[in-house]
Amino acid sequence: MVAPTNAMVSSTLEKLMELKNTSHNIRAQWVLNPPEPPCLWRQVLDNIKGTFLPRNKFSSLRNQSLSKNVFVLLQKLFPILGSLREYNIQKFKYDFMAGLTLAILAIPQSMGYATLAQLSPEYGLYSSIIPPLIYAMLASSREIVIGPIAVDSMLLSSMIRTLKDPVHDSAGYTQLVLTATFLVGVFQLAFGLFRFGFLVDYLSHATIVGFLAAAALGIGLQQLKGLFGIKHFTNKTDLISVMKAVFTSLSTQSEWHPFNFLFGLSFLFFILFTTHLGRRNKKLFWLSTAGPLFWVIIFSVIAYRINLHKLEVEDYIVEVLGPIKGGSLKSSSLYKIHVGDEFVVPLIKIGFTIAVISTTMGISVGRSFASLRGYHLDPNKEMVSLGLMNIVGSFTSCYVATGSLARTALKYNAGSETMVSSIVMALMVLLSLRFLTGLLYFTPKAVLAAIILSAISGLIDLKKAYEIWKVDKFDFLACIGAFIGVLFASVEIGLAIGVTISFVKIIIISIQPGIRIVGKLPGTYDFGDVEQYPMAVKIPGFFIVSVKSSVLCFANASLVRKRIERMVTDEEAKDGKGEITFKFVILDTSSLMSIDTAGIASLEELNKSLTLYGVKLAIANPRWQVIHKLRLANFVDKIGGRVFLSVGEAVELCIGAKIGIV
Amino acid sequence: MVAPTNAMVSSTLEKLMELKNTSHNIRAQWVLNPPEPPCLWRQVLDNIKGTFLPRNKFSSLRNQSLSKNVFVLLQKLFPILGSLREYNIQKFKYDFMAGLTLAILAIPQSMGYATLAQLSPEYGLYSSIIPPLIYAMLASSREIVIGPIAVDSMLLSSMIRTLKDPVHDSAGYTQLVLTATFLVGVFQLAFGLFRFGFLVDYLSHATIVGFLAAAALGIGLQQLKGLFGIKHFTNKTDLISVMKAVFTSLSTQSEWHPFNFLFGLSFLFFILFTTHLGRRNKKLFWLSTAGPLFWVIIFSVIAYRINLHKLEVEDYIVEVLGPIKGGSLKSSSLYKIHVGDEFVVPLIKIGFTIAVISTTMGISVGRSFASLRGYHLDPNKEMVSLGLMNIVGSFTSCYVATGSLARTALKYNAGSETMVSSIVMALMVLLSLRFLTGLLYFTPKAVLAAIILSAISGLIDLKKAYEIWKVDKFDFLACIGAFIGVLFASVEIGLAIGVTISFVKIIIISIQPGIRIVGKLPGTYDFGDVEQYPMAVKIPGFFIVSVKSSVLCFANASLVRKRIERMVTDEEAKDGKGEITFKFVILDTSSLMSIDTAGIASLEELNKSLTLYGVKLAIANPRWQVIHKLRLANFVDKIGGRVFLSVGEAVELCIGAKIGIV
Repeated sequence: MVAPTNAMVSSTLEKLMELKNTSHNIRAQWVLNPPEPPCLWRQVLDNIKGTFLPRNKFSSLRNQSLSKNVFVLLQKLFPILGSLREYNIQKFKYDFMAGLTLAILAIPQSMGYATLAQLSPEYGLYSSIIPPLIYAMLASSREIVIGPIAVDSMLLSSMIRTLKDPVHDSAGYTQLVLTATFLVGVFQLAFGLFRFGFLVDYLSHATIVGFLAAAALGIGLQQLKGLFGIKHFTNKTDLISVMKAVFTSLSTQSEWHPFNFLFGLSFLFFILFTTHLGRRNKKLFWLSTAGPLFWVIIFSVIAYRINLHKLEVEDYIVEVLGPIKGGSLKSSSLYKIHVGDEFVVPLIKIGFTIAVISTTMGISVGRSFASLRGYHLDPNKEMVSLGLMNIVGSFTSCYVATGSLARTALKYNAGSETMVSSIVMALMVLLSLRFLTGLLYFTPKAVLAAIILSAISGLIDLKKAYEIWKVDKFDFLACIGAFIGVLFASVEIGLAIGVTISFVKIIIISIQPGIRIVGKLPGTYDFGDVEQYPMAVKIPGFFIVSVKSSVLCFANASLVRKRIERMVTDEEAKDGKGEITFKFVILDTSSLMSIDTAGIASLEELNKSLTLYGVKLAIANPRWQVIHKLRLANFVDKIGGRVFLSVGEAVELCIGAKIGIV
Repeated sequence: MVAPTNAMVSSTLEKLMELKNTSHNIRAQWVLNPPEPPCLWRQVLDNIKGTFLPRNKFSSLRNQSLSKNVFVLLQKLFPILGSLREYNIQKFKYDFMAGLTLAILAIPQSMGYATLAQLSPEYGLYSSIIPPLIYAMLASSREIVIGPIAVDSMLLSSMIRTLKDPVHDSAGYTQLVLTATFLVGVFQLAFGLFRFGFLVDYLSHATIVGFLAAAALGIGLQQLKGLFGIKHFTNKTDLISVMKAVFTSLSTQSEWHPFNFLFGLSFLFFILFTTHLGRRNKKLFWLSTAGPLFWVIIFSVIAYRINLHKLEVEDYIVEVLGPIKGGSLKSSSLYKIHVGDEFVVPLIKIGFTIAVISTTMGISVGRSFASLRGYHLDPNKEMVSLGLMNIVGSFTSCYVATGSLARTALKYNAGSETMVSSIVMALMVLLSLRFLTGLLYFTPKAVLAAIILSAISGLIDLKKAYEIWKVDKFDFLACIGAFIGVLFASVEIGLAIGVTISFVKIIIISIQPGIRIVGKLPGTYDFGDVEQYPMAVKIPGFFIVSVKSSVLCFANASLVRKRIERMVTDEEAKDGKGEITFKFVILDTSSLMSIDTAGIASLEELNKSLTLYGVKLAIANPRWQVIHKLRLANFVDKIGGRVFLSVGEAVELCIGAKIGIV
């Protein structure tokens, strides 16, 4: 760091002094004859180029030793290496416990989602082994836990069902699902490599808050099935279907047993109590991570005792997971990836749709937790990781997996901060698939429901929603829109509502019609909005206004013109005698980034109607694009060349005298 | 008009002098403690109030005599009175000839569209009598000619067909159509009264150019039926269906006769020739208006002679209109307006849909021609007129009518400038319905097709499209989008594409990421973009940039931050020694109209990373909403309170010295 030297300053001063004595007329030429600005088209292309072709990716490699370079490169490719450098036994303890808890959650969840996708349950378990392992190596996120999710599972079954019947041709249906998974991976990889990651920037913070709350509520409602021990439940995720299914089941005595509810509730109490204890007392911190697993074992034993005298699983008082199909991990399902000619087009469409939704879901989950931890997620890298993971997954009998909200929340709450917990989870699922399928037999379903319920409560952030309401009503509308859309319709509709409202807000800000009255700020050379700066003084003889909008176009031009005309006639009325006390209207266009033909036409109309009142129009401080368009349309000549560098220059030149710093 | 008096100026100067000696610190407080700005929500509400509750509607009535007031009021209610004040026999001549030509066009066209709507042909004729008469009294447009149009007719038949079968229950179907017409009128009236007219502002100029060209091409293609004398033709309006129908028919010898084509083409030649003559020679101007009618009579006589020896209409060499069902105007169809309980909801939906499309079509036709004549159309008044017209129409056996593009173009080309021609047309159609149905028997269909073709050629404005291309590539995209959408899909889709592209352009302008480097403009107190003002000089020790976007939000915040950080590291690289030659980054936020939480978060990140380089961040010239949000988020404290009125103040305060006017 060097301070600017005296030599540098004086050379700049010389340069300025040379030009100091330029007259107003020469400066007017500066405004009127700028270089040709780049057109919007050009700018968009440049932006795209800037987005897709990043430079200096490895600039941090310079001036370092070779071995260090190799490590930096490896770390860029496998971010997990970075976190392992500072790894210790303490962290592993948390990760191990979290991984264990995750596995306990993942096993029944994966099987449930596989059933939802109309696949045999073991495909869900496969999808909780291979994809999390691959993702753990590649991903830049430290929070996301990978697994099958409800939305993807439902979409797959509803879309592929139209191509092949899952009941009568189960093998053919499974083959199509695996092929679709392969295509999802290809699309995700392409999104990442072509750097389409910026697309997920379009989910605003407010949208994500609403989305998370609704998704959490949706997952929570799904857990009512387990909590009440309901035997037959709906596959849908929207509020109305779920509530209907719950009430139908609860009104039928044979469908559920209140003991399950008691079981789940008391487990929830114990788990929350131990977490609370662990958080309050630093020494008892192990309670909050080991708690869930401990209580699962205790409750399983109790369930075993209670159900001991019943012979059939169907008669059990406490609903338990029951028999789980065992088996080993299939070596390869590569032969299953095959697209028959007849299904090429629909499968590509299905692949693209699910790739978009799955990526958005996964990355929005990742972003939410990344922002809680205070780091930034590179969406392009995430997309590449998700893509590779699904491609390899489709070769090993896994179906579409992405960032799972419930698991990610569980891991976050368990205090795990590295990807090791995902690896532990995957290995645990693998072990249980090989050896322990009989062991989970007596885990009560209500207990698993309570685990998920305790994990998701933190996602409904009412305080944040209230903050958004306080700061910006429009953002709150986007938040509520996303919330209601996800809850009552579907995830896609909810996200679409949130994104749309966020963009409508930008449009409204940009085209808000109206003007601001501008006054001189005492003691400076500057002029400012008299509402923002109440000490600003209006200059007599002038009516100086600034356009509020940032674009003067078809959508607001006539409204802006009418506002200015009305203010001029109001001034006339105020005078009492119907006389106008000013000779000039100065239009400060510094806010205007762009103007279109309708905007220029309305300025021409304004100039005509002002001329009728004997008032002259002047333009101050036009931006590059605006002055360019005004010159093209010959507007500058129509207002007698009264275009100035700043409001101050405009005032001085109109009255032909210096006003100085007063 | 009074010039500002010396007293006024000196009182202002005194006020300024009092405040002149405020220190920089006090002025910093001006920036930091502005009054609470109105939130966006409030502004939107105010705008809505301003739009829906106009003031001073009758301000022009003040200070005038009672009789004059009554006339002004009457003229406001019935704008036709205004044009009749300066009416003379010369104008009537044009109007009469135009009305006659319009009637000649209106009769077969109305009957054709009624058939398209699956109604008996006379309903089309009724719709060309009552609605134009009512509209002529009420409307502020001087160009629009009212009648049934193809889009509405097609929509009505396709939507009401699902409720009642038009073939087996013709009476019931007709009743539903008339009820739908009544509801369309009610919706249009409501749109107008509640001042939703601003909605049509959202059709940008570029969209209208594209829409008109495609609609003209569509209508022109429909005329191929008449021009070739094709017997069986498609009802669809999109390019592909029409071209297919034409080629299918032309390849079948029995379907058409080349004589029709010859007939139509020679008529087109004569009509264009007489119009050309009339335009070149002022004395022969009558030729251009009387021409069409004259040639219609001549060609009808020729057709009569050619067809003389044939006995059946089907055998005629030249296709003629043939027998037209006569009849008198039904006194009332009020009894037919009835909504059965079962159809309430679908009919309201149909009414709303057609009201929206019909109004948009009518007003966009009206606006196009109003802008050709150089006056402004009040969309609210138009909506009220269209609504009343359709309500009364539905009582008198008329179905939905609106501004017809073909008729309006014909009237415009005929040189008629008042609504009298519409009245003449209506009376002529009424007369022909009563007495002259036999007379139109021998009018060749090819001749009518040629009349429409000659009228629409002016609507395809290639020159305008080229101008749009030159001025703004994005607007051209909207134009082409609307054109292709209307031509290959439908009017609604085309308009939707145009509107969407126009709004996407606004979003892109508002969120374009990137920054501009700012320098001092010699001889002034001002700073400006060094690209726009190449003579601007960079101040050593400072890196002064202005944000290009007008909104810093979720969609662009991280990109903007990255650009600034990259420019800072580029400066570092440029130096060669890897040293930064500046101590301050001043961010000129005068373009920014708004900032959201993501924007503030990215500024905080920027501040953090600049601090790592030992560089301080300062904000200059924040707008009202922006400084308010920055203060709420405590950002001002985080950058050490370095928020200044202007770039100049920021520079002076950072180096602790005056830089003056150099």
